[in-house]
Order: sequence, then C-alpha cells, then structure tokens
Amino acid sequence: MSKFVYLFKEGNAKMRNLLGGKGANLAEMTNLGLPVPHGFTVTTEACTKYYDDGRTLSKEVVDQIYEALHVVEGQQGKKFGDNENPLLVSVRSGARASMPGMMDTILNLGLNDVSVKAVAKKTNNPRFAYDAYRRFIQMFSDVVMEIDKANFEAILDAKKESKGVTLDTDLDADDLKDVVSKYLVRYQEIKGEPFPQDPNVQLLEAVKAVFRSWDNPRANVYRRLNGIPYSWGTAVNVQSMVFGNMGPTSGTGVAFSRNPATGENVLYGEYLFNAQGEDVVAGIRTPNPISHLKEDNPAVFEQFKNVALTLEKHYKDMQDMEFTIENGKLFMLQTRNGKRTAQAALKIAIDMQREGLISEQEAVLMVDPNQLNALLHKGFDQAALKAAKPITKGLPASPGAACGQVVFFAEDAKAWKAEGKKVVLVRMETSPEDIEGMIAAQGIMTGRGGMTSHAAVVARGMGAPCVAGCSEIKVNEEEKWFEVGGKRYNEGDWISFDGSTGYVYGEKIETVDASISGDFKTLMDWADKYRALKVRTNADNPRDAKVAYDFGAEGVGLCRTEHMFFEGDRIKAIREMIVSDNVEDRKKALAKLLPMQRQDFIGIYKAMKGYSVTVRYLDPPLHEFVPHTEEEMRELAKEMNISYEKVKQTVDSLHEFNPMLGHRGCRLSITYPEIAEMQTRAVIEAAIEVNKEGLKVVPEIMIPLVGDVKELKFVHEIVKETAEKVFEEKGMRLDYKFGTMIEVPRGALTAGEIAQEAEFFSFGTNDLTQMTFGFSRDDAGKFLEDYYTKKIFESDPFAHLDQNGVGKLIKMAVEAGHETRKDIHCGICGEHGGDPESVEFCHRVGLDYVSCSPFRVPIARLAAAHANIKFPRK
Amino acid sequence: MSKFVYLFKEGNAKMRNLLGGKGANLAEMTNLGLPVPHGFTVTTEACTKYYDDGRTLSKEVVDQIYEALHVVEGQQGKKFGDNENPLLVSVRSGARASMPGMMDTILNLGLNDVSVKAVAKKTNNPRFAYDAYRRFIQMFSDVVMEIDKANFEAILDAKKESKGVTLDTDLDADDLKDVVSKYLVRYQEIKGEPFPQDPNVQLLEAVKAVFRSWDNPRANVYRRLNGIPYSWGTAVNVQSMVFGNMGPTSGTGVAFSRNPATGENVLYGEYLFNAQGEDVVAGIRTPNPISHLKEDNPAVFEQFKNVALTLEKHYKDMQDMEFTIENGKLFMLQTRNGKRTAQAALKIAIDMQREGLISEQEAVLMVDPNQLNALLHKGFDQAALKAAKPITKGLPASPGAACGQVVFFAEDAKAWKAEGKKVVLVRMETSPEDIEGMIAAQGIMTGRGGMTSHAAVVARGMGAPCVAGCSEIKVNEEEKWFEVGGKRYNEGDWISFDGSTGYVYGEKIETVDASISGDFKTLMDWADKYRALKVRTNADNPRDAKVAYDFGAEGVGLCRTEHMFFEGDRIKAIREMIVSDNVEDRKKALAKLLPMQRQDFIGIYKAMKGYSVTVRYLDPPLHEFVPHTEEEMRELAKEMNISYEKVKQTVDSLHEFNPMLGHRGCRLSITYPEIAEMQTRAVIEAAIEVNKEGLKVVPEIMIPLVGDVKELKFVHEIVKETAEKVFEEKGMRLDYKFGTMIEVPRGALTAGEIAQEAEFFSFGTNDLTQMTFGFSRDDAGKFLEDYYTKKIFESDPFAHLDQNGVGKLIKMAVEAGHETRKDIHCGICGEHGGDPESVEFCHRVGLDYVSCSPFRVPIARLAAAHANIKFPRK
Repeated sequence: MSKFVYLFKEGNAKMRNLLGGKGANLAEMTNLGLPVPHGFTVTTEACTKYYDDGRTLSKEVVDQIYEALHVVEGQQGKKFGDNENPLLVSVRSGARASMPGMMDTILNLGLNDVSVKAVAKKTNNPRFAYDAYRRFIQMFSDVVMEIDKANFEAILDAKKESKGVTLDTDLDADDLKDVVSKYLVRYQEIKGEPFPQDPNVQLLEAVKAVFRSWDNPRANVYRRLNGIPYSWGTAVNVQSMVFGNMGPTSGTGVAFSRNPATGENVLYGEYLFNAQGEDVVAGIRTPNPISHLKEDNPAVFEQFKNVALTLEKHYKDMQDMEFTIENGKLFMLQTRNGKRTAQAALKIAIDMQREGLISEQEAVLMVDPNQLNALLHKGFDQAALKAAKPITKGLPASPGAACGQVVFFAEDAKAWKAEGKKVVLVRMETSPEDIEGMIAAQGIMTGRGGMTSHAAVVARGMGAPCVAGCSEIKVNEEEKWFEVGGKRYNEGDWISFDGSTGYVYGEKIETVDASISGDFKTLMDWADKYRALKVRTNADNPRDAKVAYDFGAEGVGLCRTEHMFFEGDRIKAIREMIVSDNVEDRKKALAKLLPMQRQDFIGIYKAMKGYSVTVRYLDPPLHEFVPHTEEEMRELAKEMNISYEKVKQTVDSLHEFNPMLGHRGCRLSITYPEIAEMQTRAVIEAAIEVNKEGLKVVPEIMIPLVGDVKELKFVHEIVKETAEKVFEEKGMRLDYKFGTMIEVPRGALTAGEIAQEAEFFSFGTNDLTQMTFGFSRDDAGKFLEDYYTKKIFESDPFAHLDQNGVGKLIKMAVEAGHETRKDIHCGICGEHGGDPESVEFCHRVGLDYVSCSPFRVPIARLAAAHANIKFPRK
Repeated sequence: MSKFVYLFKEGNAKMRNLLGGKGANLAEMTNLGLPVPHGFTVTTEACTKYYDDGRTLSKEVVDQIYEALHVVEGQQGKKFGDNENPLLVSVRSGARASMPGMMDTILNLGLNDVSVKAVAKKTNNPRFAYDAYRRFIQMFSDVVMEIDKANFEAILDAKKESKGVTLDTDLDADDLKDVVSKYLVRYQEIKGEPFPQDPNVQLLEAVKAVFRSWDNPRANVYRRLNGIPYSWGTAVNVQSMVFGNMGPTSGTGVAFSRNPATGENVLYGEYLFNAQGEDVVAGIRTPNPISHLKEDNPAVFEQFKNVALTLEKHYKDMQDMEFTIENGKLFMLQTRNGKRTAQAALKIAIDMQREGLISEQEAVLMVDPNQLNALLHKGFDQAALKAAKPITKGLPASPGAACGQVVFFAEDAKAWKAEGKKVVLVRMETSPEDIEGMIAAQGIMTGRGGMTSHAAVVARGMGAPCVAGCSEIKVNEEEKWFEVGGKRYNEGDWISFDGSTGYVYGEKIETVDASISGDFKTLMDWADKYRALKVRTNADNPRDAKVAYDFGAEGVGLCRTEHMFFEGDRIKAIREMIVSDNVEDRKKALAKLLPMQRQDFIGIYKAMKGYSVTVRYLDPPLHEFVPHTEEEMRELAKEMNISYEKVKQTVDSLHEFNPMLGHRGCRLSITYPEIAEMQTRAVIEAAIEVNKEGLKVVPEIMIPLVGDVKELKFVHEIVKETAEKVFEEKGMRLDYKFGTMIEVPRGALTAGEIAQEAEFFSFGTNDLTQMTFGFSRDDAGKFLEDYYTKKIFESDPFAHLDQNGVGKLIKMAVEAGHETRKDIHCGICGEHGGDPESVEFCHRVGLDYVSCSPFRVPIARLAAAHANIKFPRK
C-alpha cells in the first residue's frame, strides 16, 4: 500500500516533490527541534491519484488522513470536534514550487456548533471563539463551497450598522454569535443543506478543495508562465491551530532573515500583537517592524532571532518565515527560501560566500539567471516613476524603460534623432522596412501584434524596449496621433513606457543606464570560472556587438546579413539585383553592396576585438526586399529605369504560398551563386583589413537552411574559390571556418554527412522548432492559446526548447556530427540561447557555446555556470 | 593496386556494377564459349576515379588499358596501328543500367594514314578501308572532339555533287580517299592540330569521351527521370572490330529471342547483308526480317537460333542481341534482357514459368511494376490514333486517354454530363471548387501548372486523365474558347488527349477500357501469393473506392473528408460553421453536414465490402472553404443573412502567412471539438447502419498532423465520448480503431509516446517530406530545377521517398511505436505508397500496408511482391 500521508516528523526538506515546499519545510523544522505545531501532509501523489480517480479521494487516502489525524490528536491532547477540548486545524495547499494561483489557507477548521462552545469555555473568551467560527464559516464557504464572500460580508455589515459601529472589533461575543447563526442560515439557503458540522467532512472537503484548486484557471496560467508541469500536483498541509489573537502576549508575523530588497544582513519583517495572520493582510492595524519585538518581548525576539539564524545556516539561504506567538510561546508556521530583488540576490549570495556559509559555486547557484534581466536594461528613475500613472498597458515584449517624443514613421524617427532628439516609435505594427527607425528610437510601441511579432522579435534582438499589442490605443498613422483613455497624443508629445511591465505613461520619466559592476561583476566572474559553455551573441551591427562585448560575449554566434540590406541605398541595390534577369546585371548590383557589407563586417570584427564572428549568409526570401504597393512599385520602376510591368512581374513571381518553406537560405546561393560570392568577398576582405591592423579575427562563414550535404558542398566550392581569389589579390591568407546552421529537420537527420563539409554546426532552433512541430510562429498564435487552455502545451516551445522533440534532433545531430568530425564545433543561435532552461539542455547535450541577444549574454553566462555546477562536464 | 581493366574472359554477368551491363554480358558470353570478338572493359570505378582525379585518366588506369590491349593484340594476332595487320577496335559506353543519354559507339578506332593502307591491302578492298577511315574520322571528331558533323557532311555532299551521284555507295575508293584527305584538313582547321594518328591517343581520348558523357545534360536528365544515381559512373568497352560489310557473306543484325511487342515465343528481329550496324540505322536499304536468314544462310541461322536459346536459358529472360556475320562467321556483339511492352512482359513471364524456365517468383520479378501503369488506364483505339495528329503537348500529369466535348467551367461539366454528354474540362488552372466538374469530366486539361498542380494531384488521385501546363494554348474562360496553332476550339468541340504522353488532339478518338484479366490476372495472383505488405487505397468517394476494390485494394488507407465538403450545399454549411462565433451556431451548421457525411461513409464502406476504411478527420485550414473575392463574400453575406463586414472580417482573420504550417489538422479539432464530434458520429453511425446490413466493417478514425501525444489524447477523449453516445442511442456496439497520421517530424520523433493513444500509424509522407526538408511543394518548383541541374538532388523527393532523411524518421517511429504497443498497425498514405521503390522501403522498414491512389493499386501489389521476394519477411 502506498503512503499518501506523512506526519511532519516523518518527512524532511528533501521530500519536496512528495510533500510540497511547505510540507517538506514544516517537517524539516520539526526535526530540527524548532517549535512547530503538530500536523501532517497529504502528498502530491495523493493529488495525482485524486485526478486519476476521477476527482475523488480514495478510501485508502481517507483512511490515512484519519490515522494521521488521530496521532495529532494524541500529540496535542485534543480531539477533533470534541465538546470539551476540541482540536482545530489549518488546511493549506503547498506545491513543489510556490504557486500563488492556488487555494491558500483555511483556518480554524474543526469548529462547529458544539466545539465553538468548548473553545469559548476553555479560552474563557467567547468573543474569540465566535469570531473564529464566523471566520471559518466564511472561509470554508468561499474556498471550498465557492459561495461568494459578499453574502457573508453583507450580514456582518448589517450587524455593524445596526450597532452603529464601524470596526469588526467593536462587535462583542453576542453580536458575533448572532452573526454566526445568520451565516449558517444563509449557507443553507444557498447550498440547500446545512453547513457541515462533522469536522471529518469539513476536513475532507477542504483537502479536495486544495486538490481542485491545482486545476483552476489562475493556477494553469501561472504554471505556464513559470514552466511548472501540470503533472506535479499539490500537497495539503493539515496543522494544529495556534492563535496569535489570544491576548496581549500573543501575536503573529512574517520576517526575512535578511532584507529582501537590498540584501542587507539584518532581520527584516513585521508583526502584529494580538492578531491572526489575516488581520495583517486586512490592514485593520498597522503592523510593527520586527525590531520592535525586541522591546515588546526580548526573550521571544531572541528566540526568533536564533531560529532565523539556525534556519539560514541550515538551508544556506535567506529565509522567509511565518510565526505566531500564542500566550508568549513562539510557534513557527512556515519557512522557505525568501524571494528577493535581483540586487538583493547578488548581495546575499556574495555576503554568504564571504561569511563562509556557502561556496562560490553555491553562491552562483543562488542567483536565478532570469532575474538578472532586471539589471541589464535601462530603468526608470524610481522617484519619478512613483509619481506617474500608466495610461495603458500592452504586452511586455522587450524589457527596458524608454522615454522620448512620439513619432509614427521610421523615417521621422531617423530624422528627429539626427536632430539630436530622443524619440519613441509608435506604430500599428512594424515591418522590416522600419528597421532603421527602430534603431533610431529609444523604444517601440505597437497597437497590434504579440510577443513574437516583428516589433517584439527585432526589439529583443536589439535590446530596445518594446511594448507590443497595446490594444486599447487607437493609432492614426496618417494624421500622426494616437488616442487612449479619451486623450489624444500627437507627434512630438513625450511618453514613456517600460518593456518589462508593459506599462505606458503619458509623460516624460527619466531613465537610468545599466552596467555590470560591484556585486554583479563579482558574481559574473565566479560564473565565468565555473562554466563550460562559451557565450556568444547574436549581433548584426557594431553597436549591438559592442553592447554584447561589454556584457561579456565571447564572439558573435549569429550575424544576420539581411538586416544590413534594408538601410539607405542598400535596399536599392538589392532590389536592382532582384529585378535583374541575368548574372551580369546581378553581379553589377551586388558589386554596389560589397563595400557597404565589407564595412559592416569590419565594424563588427572590431567591436568583437578578435573574437570569432559567425556570418550567416543571406537567408530570407527575396520578396521581403521588394515593395508590394503599386505606388512603390512604380517608383522602383522609375528608379531602375525599367517598366512598371517588369517590376510587377518580378514581384508577382516572388510570391510564395509558404514563404517559410520557400526559396530562401542556402537555396538562394544555389540559384544565385553570385550572392555567396559577394558575401564571401566581404567577409574575407574585411577580415584581411582588420587583421592587418593587428586583430586576429577568424571569420566563420555560416550557410543557412541546409538539409543535404550536397547543398553545403555546392556553396562550399563557391566560398573556397572566392576566398582563394581574394587571398591572391590581397597577397595575404588567413584562417576562416566554414559551417552551417542546422535548422531544417533533415539537416539534423543527416548531420553525419553534413559534417563532411561543415567545420561547425549552429542550431537555429527558431526554424527547427517551427519545422519540427510543423507550425509557423506567425500563425500559431491563433491556436496556441487553445493549446494552453486545454493543457496540450504547458510552455511556449519558442521560449523554452522542446527537449523531447526538437532536442532529440539536436542530440542526434551533435552525436552524428562528432562521429564524422571529432572536433566539430557546435552551438545554438536561436532565441533559446538566452533561456536558462534551454542553456542547461545545450550544456548537457555537449554544445560548445550558446549565442543570444546582447542583453541576455550575462543571463546565459550565469545559466551556463549553473548547468556546469549541476552537471559537470568531464 | 586496384584493377581498373578486365579482359572479357576475366569478367562475368554478376559484375554488372563494375563492368556495366554491356561489359558484364560480353564477359558472360565469352565464358559461355559463344563467338565474341576479343576485348576488355574499363570499369565504372575507373570512371569515378576519372572524376575524382579532376577529369583525368591516371597513369594506373592508362597502364592497365595498354596492358589489356596487348593481350587482345595477341588474341587477334593483330597489332594496334600496325602497317601490315592492324587491330581495329570499337569503343562503347556501358553503364550499370542502359542509358540512352550517353555516348554510344565509336567504330574502326585504330585507323590512321598508315593502317588504312594496310587494311586496304589485307582486305583487298580499298573502298572498304577508306570508307571505314572516313566514318571513323567523322565519329571521332563528333563524339570525342565535339566537332559538328555538318562540317564533314558538307565535304561528302560536295564530293557527291561533283561526281553527280546521290548515294554514298556510288563513291569509289579514290573518291573516298579524297574525302578522307579533305576531312583531315578540315579537322586541322577547326582544332588547330592534326587528327591524332597515334591509335593509343585515339583510344585514350575515346575512353575519356565516354567518361565525360556520363555528365552531359541529357544523361543527367535521364538519370533523374529514372532514378539512377550519379555516383554509379559508366564503364567503357573496347572490342576488336568485326565487319559485316565485307561482302555478300557478311552482314549485321539485331534480334529478340521473343517478340517484344506481343511476347510471342518466336525469334524476332532484322538483319542486313553486307552492311555495318550504322547502315541499318541510316536506312539506305530496308533490312530483312530475321526469318529470312534461314533461307539466306541456314547454317548461320541455326547457329544464331541456338545462341539465342542458350542465352535465354542462361539469363532466364528474353534477350535483345546484336550480331555481325563476317565472311560467313557469326559474332555476338551484345546481349541484354530485352525491353518489352507491358503486354509482352506479362506473356513472357507467364510463358517462361509454364516452360519450366523460371519459378513463379522469378516470373513476378520479371515484370516491372511501373510498367503496369500502361495497362491500368483507358487507352486510345490504336487504329484511330495512328490517323490522328497532335495539336499541342502538355505535361503528362495523370495517365489515361480522354475524349469528350470541351467545357470551360465545372458547373458546365456537371450539367452536360447530366444530359448524358461526354465532356473534357479545359481550364487555365483548377481550384478545389472545381472538384465536381473534374469528377464529371472524362479528363482535365490546363494551360498552367506543373505535375504537382491542383489539377494534376487531384486527377491522379481520381485516376482521371490530365494534361497540365499546356503552355501553348491560350484559354479564354469567359468567352469559352481556347486557341492553339492558330485554330480556335469552342465549347462543345470534340478533343482528345493522353495523360500518359501529354499529347492533345483536336478531334474525337475513341477510347478503350482497362481490366485485369488473362495473363495480367495470373501474374497479379502470383504477386498476391508472395507479398507481405497489404495494399490499400486512397479514396474519398464510393466511385474511387469501387475502382480500387476492383484493382485489388484491401481497404481504404486514406479517406480525406475535406473533399466531401466542396460538393453542392455542403460548402454552404461549412461556411456557415466558419462564420459562426459560438459553439451552438457551429454545432447547428455541422448538424446539416452530418447526414451527408454519414451517407458518404456508407457508400465507401459498401464499396469496400467489409475491408477497413481509414477516415482522416478534417485537415485543411478553414480558409480553403471561404470565398476570397468581394463579390463572392457579399453573396455569402446575403445567403447567411449577416453583414458583408462580418464575412470579410472572418475571411481576413483566417489569413495565414504559412498555411502549410497553420491552423489545420488536429489543431482544428482542438479549437473546435464539435467538428471531431460530428465526424465521429458520421463514421460510427454509418458503420452501424452498414453492419446491420451484414457487412462487418471496422472503421479506423485517423487524426491528422499530430505532433504531441496530448493532442491525440484530447481528440481521443472526444471520439470515445461521442462513440459511446452513439452506441447507446443505437443500442448497438462495434469495433473501431483510433490512430493518427505521422506527418509532422515531431510526431515521428515522439512516436513512442503517441503510440500510447494510437492503435495505428499512417505515415503521411507528403507533408512529412515537406516539413523534413523544410520546403513546400507549392513553392519548391522555383528552385528544384536548379537543384537538379546542379546535381544537388538526383530525384524528386515527392515521387521517391527520401530514405536517408524522411525514411530515417519513419524507421524511428515504427520502432518506437512497436516498443510502446507491440501490435501497432503501420502504413503509409502519401503518394509514395504507389511508387515501387518507396514500396520496397516500406516493406523493409516493417510497415503493414501501403495505401495509394486506385490506379496504382496493382502496381503497389506487384511492387510489394518484388520487395518480399527480394527481402523475405521473417
């Protein structure tokens, strides 16, 4: 028979998966000899069983609950539902990871018409007893029976009114007795049956309610956002009640063993005398800082301080504790590792290492890589922010604070910036042609589009703040204004927004820059010491490359050359190439691009100061470069001095049913080898120039979308020939590497063959995810919401690498690649490269590096350290 | 040291891969003691080496050629380039498979200014000698040196003119001597160097020319069409010359051991006395039937007859032989298995089995499955066809002959057919809405679109003849005419076309039906006896199902339900569903579809007489069902009694960037479970009705596009619930199976998990190929041509399954599926199911069945037999 119920003394902190976080820590404290009220935990496995059994508690589980309850009755010398010395318990949910979406707490369970009298008599405090009963009825009805609280509050309010008082505390025992009886009547009216008087029934219903709450919509959303699997389930903790509202020598409080905002090593928290936990929340009285306890009751304070110290030492982490003092006696109700700001996380980790409490590795593990995000982007001046009120909220699409004057067109952004103005670009949605304007702007805000819209993806790539999909705003680009909340904002008006929260403000709020220094730098130095994975960056221009270098990037893992083609005259040259119908004309147009592209690479090589730079050859389908309205096409025709029909015909011929699966990537170089020729020239000539100046850069030429070794071999020949030509012309040689992206399933499946031509693999997990799942990011938005709601997907495969499917392909490819070429260099350059969970996978699967957007470089460095500390490389 | 050259006596028929077909058979005949002029073969490995060495012959190869040559000199008692008794040789290409795209033959090699005199003297026939030299110079210049033949023909013509004669044979020895000297001058003028006099140089140049010809464009195209790998290379055969033009007791001929047109067991061929092989081709004299040889030279005839018999017995197949008679002595120059018509193939196989020459298995193997195609479709009455002349040619998109009156619209096709007329549908291109018209027509002809256009794919599926992409015709659908070759064809005019050849005729040509009977039936019975794979069909309606059943289909492997939704009122109901914005309205619309869909299934079940029918649930994105022009949208709005804006909004919201990767397949059932509900009802209710009538059908419900087991589980729950409801309502249960298509790479990668929910897998290799390669069939046309030209792809992955990439996924999925569920049933339902090469793969990888279009069922049956005979299942 499985064990579904554990007494606190039977568990320990390591049993978190089975007992939940709360239960495991209650058990651990019990066994540490700390003052914990007796109780037991119904396991997460019981929760899973509850669902497997069609949402019922099996007899097995029920029997074990009763058995444990009897033990607790014995420990406390009380009896459940007793009419002399009744046992009251609290019932709390507690999953493996803390989950605010779930049911929290029911207090005072065990009270009924009989036991309430016993409590009144025993405590000699009928007011206390009936108040407790009233609260219990309301909580139980609300959380377990889903009866709206308003039903009961109305009764209480009526009572207060009839008595002419405003505070609950002004009601006496008789008043409350009356309230209780009215509550019970109301309950029966609504449910059609009396309030359950049998404490056993109360208990089982409460346990079921906790299990049920695991599946409520709030919990589901929270899990998805936090990557918590549905299969984990929650545990339920049943614990004898202690009361902080027994009189002036009683109280309740919450405290952290260090300051969770700053990390300072000092006890931090608040307490309230003669109160129960919920009173603190209700805000009837203002709680005191924990330091006051020292004056109020030095002995208990000393005891609590020691407990905090003991727990911190024991858990080797800052603790967040709940306690109650009942008639001068301290009880611990909960402890857990405390949540903290990013700043505090760094300070606590480093302090603890210096205090000798933890090792460097443990300090590194103590900081959540994702938390660094908050430190890596511009933030608002906190004082200014406090005074401001948001005018709307959109999707937090790319973190960081932005402040500037509103413009509505990319060219305006560029022009205004050139005049020295700070601008933010507001558009209904953005397109590749807006790229220069996006670069010029402090941030981008769009009315439409999700977290993976063009604006969001590009902004994240650039590290520019972006709030996307502000559905409440109405944008009129033609007339250059937007409206929200009845107010119109015109071109030139100042606004501010925060891409980390999605809040938009209709005013100027100053921003402050980020940098890696102090504790942050110390921790990153430790992280670098312990990681095995290198961290590169995705950067398409010197500016981004420099930001990434300053954030510790060790090379460029992905330099997308197509972004370079949208700027200024370049788009003209590329269009000229596209409308050409013979090789010579195409070469002529490409020759115009060569010097510009070479200059780009020189800039990036220099920004990277000798680190390798991986250049991906032209990837997107050519129709992304051509205009699509008649007006623009006519303009182009005029510019090119060809007929409109010719332009239209070219544009039409480029139309594709499924551009994602169309004429792009290496397929372009196969049809138009002259493109690969020009790009090779630019890469090699730039490297020669930079190397002459003393930097020793080894360019890496990366061919996208390869599915067959012969594709790669074909392009390889062009690259080799061109490079040799350049070497001869320049009278100088240098090393370069040739490799491919693995982003088409067949590329991964035939990686062993592809490695014959490739010196490196870079996994393009964005496309690989799309093709492995068979859905496009642009279109999946329509049904993925249903997938989440219906629990088919628990997390976004574009945010966290799908290890089960896509990951299997990566693993196969890494293994096959190494079989063919022992020293093949492998990395990842999809957006997953900056996701800690995916970084750990990359480490375990044996990649050499991850590459991510500049602003995620420190996150990846820390995540790589976590991975190697947890799973050391041989 | 590798052996690159084999004397004929060193080889045998089994060394085909190394020696090529021709060389291997010359060796085999030599060792059988048949009269074969001495010679040797330069191997296919030498060819590969030639390319590896940068298109040069290595010293190793050259040395071995000379060595072999010396042996032949000894055997013949002649010497290469000798001035008394010179050895002359022929040089011929010979690959593993016969390849008309390559260089064929150079005769008389070894002749030069010296040896020609020796030949003249030795044969006492100077005319013969100089004629031979003349021919050699021209052939060598043409094939080896790429000098246009016209250069030499002009000289010959001038000579004839100056002599006042018209035939070559009217020129005497001196004339030809003069011609030769002029040839040599012309050669030097063009090449800037004298004609090579050194026979060794002649020989090496000829060998290189053969190797080179392996890579010429014609050869490449031929290989692609016939699935011959580029890596095979060709061999070269060098053989002592014998002369059929030495006088009246000499001659040359070609013969088959049986009649290749009918299969009749009688020697069949022609010969020409006092002639060389090329004279037969040149058509100077009409050759005699081989039977005449009996009268002309009974002894040689008898000898040849015996040789033919010996070879047939030896090879156990009908032989195609070349021979020469030199001064009354028979020489065999080539033998190979003869090409034959489908009809003949069947007769020969069955006759040979009955003659005790071969077993049933060998008879089965003797017939190429692809050849059956010719027997499975309507053909033209041969007499009528001979009199007709094509007016244009398009792509042979779907085989079979069609004849009917031209109509230009689907509704006209339907209406005319209802009046009892035979029509053919001519359109610029077809769309899903034309489906009913396509069914009503005898065949479909389009002005635009390739082998994978809508018209082509649908026509092949239906087994309807289709000629697509007739680029020469101009179609005016509005005015109902098309023009070609200056002639206009109006609605109602009779035309005929053949989807197997692409030829279109501007007149009525009667057609004749296909059936499986006689030899065809016998062979198919044997095939069924020896195969392990079951063969099902892809059929969406009772008509196709019946055709397939008659062709031996053992069930429906793929019934696409979406095609059913385009007919008549159904499209209305489905559009009504699409514009509904709540479940109730959607259910109401679906309820209208239920009885129609149920009736479809009843029809198909009945046509299949109890065999299993696999029904695939709705797959295409919903936008395929909605109108896209404003006019049609307004009409729909009116019909639905909703606003135009509402319709437009719905249509717009259905737009997808990559429909292939969009909201389709099981994703539809997840968003709209009511669709799966309706379809389940239709499937089960129909099965109950049919089973009540005595057929015991087990419907198989198949969910498309599954990439994760949870998707399948979600739909499975709906199916189970609905089926249970129907069972209850009807008071009757029946067995049904639930499974999925594996067509998304992730489906294959996680097949082990998916098998927890799926009782069967059906590999949808069309989509699986698209997603594994990452290109869409609709768009790949643009670059695949480049892929073929540049030898990146050697065959079309949509025609022949890509075993290396897609096949790897299938193999993984089959293995993982069986690990989870030992008796999981696996099949394939992509178009590859009818491709013999892919069928063999399916057999080897352990599938249970293949499913293909009705007209390919016999082909698949035979291919399955081939596979199991070659690779018997344990």
